[in-house]
Amino acid sequence: MATLFLSKLAEITASTLQGDGTLKIHNITSLETASVGDISFATGRKHLVALKKSKASAFILTPELASLSEHPTVLINPSPYLAYAKVIAAFYPDKKPRELRHPSCVIDSSSQIASTVTIGANVVIGAEVSIAKGVVIDAGCVIQAGCHIGKNTRLYANVTLYSDTQIGQQCCLHSGVVVGSDGFGYAPDQGEWFKIKQVGNVIIGDQVEIGANTCIDRAALGSTVIANGVKLDNLIQIAHNVTIGEDTAIAGCSAIAGSAKIGQRCQIGGAACIGGHLSIADDVIITGMSMVPSSITASGVYSSGMPISENRQWRKNTIRFTQLDKMTKKLRALEKQVKQLESKQ
Amino acid sequence: MATLFLSKLAEITASTLQGDGTLKIHNITSLETASVGDISFATGRKHLVALKKSKASAFILTPELASLSEHPTVLINPSPYLAYAKVIAAFYPDKKPRELRHPSCVIDSSSQIASTVTIGANVVIGAEVSIAKGVVIDAGCVIQAGCHIGKNTRLYANVTLYSDTQIGQQCCLHSGVVVGSDGFGYAPDQGEWFKIKQVGNVIIGDQVEIGANTCIDRAALGSTVIANGVKLDNLIQIAHNVTIGEDTAIAGCSAIAGSAKIGQRCQIGGAACIGGHLSIADDVIITGMSMVPSSITASGVYSSGMPISENRQWRKNTIRFTQLDKMTKKLRALEKQVKQLESKQ
Amino acid sequence: MATLFLSKLAEITASTLQGDGTLKIHNITSLETASVGDISFATGRKHLVALKKSKASAFILTPELASLSEHPTVLINPSPYLAYAKVIAAFYPDKKPRELRHPSCVIDSSSQIASTVTIGANVVIGAEVSIAKGVVIDAGCVIQAGCHIGKNTRLYANVTLYSDTQIGQQCCLHSGVVVGSDGFGYAPDQGEWFKIKQVGNVIIGDQVEIGANTCIDRAALGSTVIANGVKLDNLIQIAHNVTIGEDTAIAGCSAIAGSAKIGQRCQIGGAACIGGHLSIADDVIITGMSMVPSSITASGVYSSGMPISENRQWRKNTIRFTQLDKMTKKLRALEKQVKQLESKQ
Repeated sequence: MATLFLSKLAEITASTLQGDGTLKIHNITSLETASVGDISFATGRKHLVALKKSKASAFILTPELASLSEHPTVLINPSPYLAYAKVIAAFYPDKKPRELRHPSCVIDSSSQIASTVTIGANVVIGAEVSIAKGVVIDAGCVIQAGCHIGKNTRLYANVTLYSDTQIGQQCCLHSGVVVGSDGFGYAPDQGEWFKIKQVGNVIIGDQVEIGANTCIDRAALGSTVIANGVKLDNLIQIAHNVTIGEDTAIAGCSAIAGSAKIGQRCQIGGAACIGGHLSIADDVIITGMSMVPSSITASGVYSSGMPISENRQWRKNTIRFTQLDKMTKKLRALEKQVKQLESKQ
Repeated sequence: MATLFLSKLAEITASTLQGDGTLKIHNITSLETASVGDISFATGRKHLVALKKSKASAFILTPELASLSEHPTVLINPSPYLAYAKVIAAFYPDKKPRELRHPSCVIDSSSQIASTVTIGANVVIGAEVSIAKGVVIDAGCVIQAGCHIGKNTRLYANVTLYSDTQIGQQCCLHSGVVVGSDGFGYAPDQGEWFKIKQVGNVIIGDQVEIGANTCIDRAALGSTVIANGVKLDNLIQIAHNVTIGEDTAIAGCSAIAGSAKIGQRCQIGGAACIGGHLSIADDVIITGMSMVPSSITASGVYSSGMPISENRQWRKNTIRFTQLDKMTKKLRALEKQVKQLESKQ
Repeated sequence: MATLFLSKLAEITASTLQGDGTLKIHNITSLETASVGDISFATGRKHLVALKKSKASAFILTPELASLSEHPTVLINPSPYLAYAKVIAAFYPDKKPRELRHPSCVIDSSSQIASTVTIGANVVIGAEVSIAKGVVIDAGCVIQAGCHIGKNTRLYANVTLYSDTQIGQQCCLHSGVVVGSDGFGYAPDQGEWFKIKQVGNVIIGDQVEIGANTCIDRAALGSTVIANGVKLDNLIQIAHNVTIGEDTAIAGCSAIAGSAKIGQRCQIGGAACIGGHLSIADDVIITGMSMVPSSITASGVYSSGMPISENRQWRKNTIRFTQLDKMTKKLRALEKQVKQLESKQ
């Protein structure tokens, strides 16, 4: 690992340096695990105790925490979390892959692959694929005909791209990701299902990250679109013809049904389900496990789902839930009765 | 792409032709994106505005929409959606794979593979596998010992079949699908778990489609059974010893627990969870995110789950939910009090 | 398959033998499918009818069932389910893989692989990987640099291990499993997301089983830890820096958010979601589809979620749910009014 001067870390993070800039820093880690020579960080008052106990030699702190902690060696930054992200990237630069094309990879002669592309063992690349410079494709990936991958994008091992998938620059697709599989479309036909051929594709913008085993279906007609800067966690289902706006982040195990249109800068919690053929405005936050059956037209925080209770209490309450409509009617009846009683006094 | 006469499309879809049958049609697409030379379709009155604006040269319409739209060139059909499915299949015929067996594939000498089977790069086929004619197996698939694959079935890239999996004809398994992995079975043994060897298999009928990264576990004893015509979307979990009846369709991210028996022609919405050791009747519709903890004995539509509200309102209501049982008791007490008050008047 | 004397099965299962120990048994199967020469088992009174009808030649029964059934040939055991697990393991011993290293596998010269390791076709093993004796790695697995795999562990086909993943002894990872992918960590940066490099790893103990297509993310800093004896079903999401205690079992489609700390011997039902940065005590049972947004400090059974009702009834009740807070206030007002009325009498 690199050793970096504290003054260099101040520069990288655009922080105000307080203390000795020539201090050599060897790593960044959590308050609890840091030792002499490390830098650490804290984002709020709840970390004050851990901050005072920490053995780190320097800290990235908000102005408030810096004054509260009175530590002599501090990088003062309005966003220590972002600063930490920048410092860790400096300590752990990307390793250069060791070889450009493993001899076992199978590449169709009609594909166009820039000379600086790294291709791992057993990668299979179909006809008329184009891959820009700096792309890294790990072992076992299968890239079907007509795909395009923009520069510096990385595919980890065992990713599958179906035909005609378009991926932008500086994206990261994790292992097991499937992009471009058929949407779930069938027309009812006398009690059976007649498959609707899915002839669209998937278009993914720049700086998109897609977590392990996440699936993005191709459009029935047209394109499923994932805009620039979108971050998708693991095991997410994106159905056909979905559109996801720029810089929206979606946590693991969520499902977005067909033709849903999600705005920009939304944050969708884990295991949330978004219904089909609806729109979600920009800057909407949806908490985990929420069910979204209809459009959301205004930014804000939206929730559903039921936190746990002790099992017996839950059983009683769920039974009551099934009686809620009756209960409301009883309550109304009672209100009338009481009104009558009151009027007779 | 093919160019087809309108009269041919009328024939394919069994529609009544209204207008010039010699019109050449180049593609089928949505009302909004269609241009001159395209055919499009509409299924209900909600599409009337888009229909009137559409630049398509012809339309597939219900009799009602045909009379309302007054467009001169129409295929009249009771089910335009099914007709669309048939037309798009005509415009986009399956591409014939280019070569039969890639030299990199690894095939056990005891397997029996029909001469017309297409096998992609790096496919691995174990002992005593039998594969019928017309099957297409894309790159990276692993098919373990004793599997059978019926004719014209397609496995997309990176599918894994565990040993003894039986798959019927004209099925389609998407990338990342795993069939035949061990069911989740353990016997408690002094605070630890003793694995129950899963010695059954998976049997899949004809015309079954299985979406990307969906998992179907082998039976503990006997077989996990997916009947003819079943359609499974992406990221579905089918546990050991489940049976799914003919033509049932299950949307993405659903989970079916062990030994559940699901009827024919059911429709199960996304992220629904079906409990173990229960039965679901034929023709049951379960909406998305529903929890099914016990058997359903009659056809019909069943639901659970809570649509979102604004976060603050939701917080209040979930607290109230945990007080529901108390609330019911209060209501009952109040009813008695009011009755007493009334009786005293 | 082996043929085993009944006395041998009594010995394997530590059962009391009742009847002829020289009886030859050919298989173990369910009460319903057993025929002459088979042994079967029953765990409770609910199986009495099936037990009396069963054609099996011998049974593993609790003392109570043994006396109720009056069958002459019985292995009496306090836990017939555990005994079944032991008998089936005796009838179906693991098949020895046929060859040690397939010539197509790609192994970095700096890796250290014990001589008894079995490696399937197209397996890719990176630099400085160490693999202990008896390990079996099926076709298509990719094991990146710096991983360690303990003895007798099995990786089924198409598993991906990211760099520096540590796996203990006698584990079983099913197909499509991804271990060590990046955690979902970004710092907000002027409306965009700045990726936080995930520099930790994943440490998995001994006798851990991981179901198909389950994902376990590497830690941001430090390690994501799965302790000895943990059993994970299919399609589970384990986020970065999660810790799961010994012998905890988690059913399919569950999601554990970042930095959650789950105790020992917990049982978590399918599709449950555990929030981030919380703790769950030892011996906690969480039922399927539960939402756990905060810590659980005492062992016990916890639940949430709403079982299905008929769709129309559900619609009414969910509307009432959104009025619950208002309803509670109305109820309170009514209580006051009634009290006043009563006081005036």
